[in-house]
Amino acid sequence: MASGKPASGEDSLIARYFRPLATDPGALGLDDDAAALQPDGSDIVVTTDAIIEGVHFLPDDPPDTVARKALRVNLSDLAAKGAVPAGFVLTLALRGADEAWLKPFAAALGEDAAQFACPLLGGDTVSTPGPLMVSVTAFGRVPPGKMVHRSGAKAGERVMVTGTIGDAALGLAVLKGGKVHAAATDVAARDALVGRYRVPQPRVALAEIVRDFASASMDVSDGLAGDLTKLCGVSGVSAVIDLPSIPLSSAARDLVFRGVVGLEALIAGGDDYEILCSIAEDRVEAFSQAAERTGVAVSSIGTVVAGSAFPKFIDAEGREIALERLSYSHF
Amino acid sequence: MASGKPASGEDSLIARYFRPLATDPGALGLDDDAAALQPDGSDIVVTTDAIIEGVHFLPDDPPDTVARKALRVNLSDLAAKGAVPAGFVLTLALRGADEAWLKPFAAALGEDAAQFACPLLGGDTVSTPGPLMVSVTAFGRVPPGKMVHRSGAKAGERVMVTGTIGDAALGLAVLKGGKVHAAATDVAARDALVGRYRVPQPRVALAEIVRDFASASMDVSDGLAGDLTKLCGVSGVSAVIDLPSIPLSSAARDLVFRGVVGLEALIAGGDDYEILCSIAEDRVEAFSQAAERTGVAVSSIGTVVAGSAFPKFIDAEGREIALERLSYSHF
Repeated sequence: MASGKPASGEDSLIARYFRPLATDPGALGLDDDAAALQPDGSDIVVTTDAIIEGVHFLPDDPPDTVARKALRVNLSDLAAKGAVPAGFVLTLALRGADEAWLKPFAAALGEDAAQFACPLLGGDTVSTPGPLMVSVTAFGRVPPGKMVHRSGAKAGERVMVTGTIGDAALGLAVLKGGKVHAAATDVAARDALVGRYRVPQPRVALAEIVRDFASASMDVSDGLAGDLTKLCGVSGVSAVIDLPSIPLSSAARDLVFRGVVGLEALIAGGDDYEILCSIAEDRVEAFSQAAERTGVAVSSIGTVVAGSAFPKFIDAEGREIALERLSYSHF
Repeated sequence: MASGKPASGEDSLIARYFRPLATDPGALGLDDDAAALQPDGSDIVVTTDAIIEGVHFLPDDPPDTVARKALRVNLSDLAAKGAVPAGFVLTLALRGADEAWLKPFAAALGEDAAQFACPLLGGDTVSTPGPLMVSVTAFGRVPPGKMVHRSGAKAGERVMVTGTIGDAALGLAVLKGGKVHAAATDVAARDALVGRYRVPQPRVALAEIVRDFASASMDVSDGLAGDLTKLCGVSGVSAVIDLPSIPLSSAARDLVFRGVVGLEALIAGGDDYEILCSIAEDRVEAFSQAAERTGVAVSSIGTVVAGSAFPKFIDAEGREIALERLSYSHF
């Protein structure tokens, strides 16, 4: 992002809405072509995720929730890697300079940047004839060599997950209408599900705890089943998951109980932005207590086992449940 | 980017085409949610630029040139900041997994990444119903505090520019047909202009020299006139530019001489990806010699002057030329 004397549309919009967010000295007030990240001996963890209108958010999602989602899906990645946020750059592809959209977008982005101590460092604003796109590259810091990888899960460890699973997928189903919308008659519960879809809750507060305790970790963005399969694949292990142990919100539990959705749809769904990690058996208790002190519930959902088979999901009767659609893929 | 066992379309495509590019250990073979940049005491310079089909490149531009342009526009920013490339992350928004497009795209990206020692560290592949978009965030290293800013130009210094100006704008005009296409009858010259539009030549070899000599620097991406205005604005100075000193290729000079295009169209055009910088008078000679040793010609095109007026552009007869369209703005 850059600005100079010619008060062209792009420059003046950037100045008005985004410069107030560029609070870090390394952002140079967005007056330059680049930002500088000062070294402090940490490794810089880099992650990038884009969200596209009609794919990752809905065309009528409010601009403030679009801003929060764009940043938070990246903060979620950083947290799962054990990294403390350091800043982000933003690429915004817009059909035009719609101030009624940009103003609440920038305001919410600024609030989240402040809340999560992750300042805007720079960016690029481009016009597109197509759907809105918000691409964020976020930076975090970890002590040298301490980034928590996907690989590293070992047989005998516990599979743990934060928060609850499946709410965002249900929120999207509510927004799309259909049977979930019809069945979710409780307005507060419905709003909570939609909120989970539109505004993820990245587990930033857990970053250092994940770093201290987890052998392997990733955030759950493409569905618990598929993401666990990825973590196991990279770690060279398998897992046995106890389906009834998967944490559900009361709204989700109610919909499953009433037969509106199957549990497998929730664990194949996406957009959870919870942390999935592998913890040595003798450290599970300390991990849970540390997480609880940050206000985040963690659940043990199964065991890492040796082998290269796909993870198994076992129901309350001890039967293995076949998961036909293991992961959401964009293609 | 991430890959695991489920051979979904996205994962297998990433594995096949992009993993061979992830040569840096920090990329973790694209098997993780994030990459790690190890500290070496340098400041990390971060820049991000996206290119969109129909806006920054043409729908029938070959995939290999799209890949090179996406990376090179960012390498150009790094060079202008005095930063040596360290790596990049890529966000690719595609309408589908078209292997006939992806294969040459990835191959060319890999060649450029190797040529400019800027390895792929990670990324995100998303589907879009809209135009293709390639967003790159690139990282470079400079000694602490040594990033060259846009601000810093001082009255009395010389305004210098690398290479030649206006060729890319002419190349775009050739591709769009019309009078420039009709007038550019020399096939080799025409191809050279189109090449400048499609595949910028980032001045990576000049990064350390810019760092050693320039008081202020930026790359010329939105047109020389507008970008100079920005550099002057941020530096709190003005400039007087000698139009006949602006370096033109023989193809561009020929088109200006024949009256096909005006010089002002060339300096208002975009996509030059040359370096514009301010050099103290007594260091101009040494700067020019150092640049020449890397094979890059540099030209002195004017003088930085005190004041806050827009830069003046003076023709061969000493008349000031009014520039109605100082800069390309995306809105």
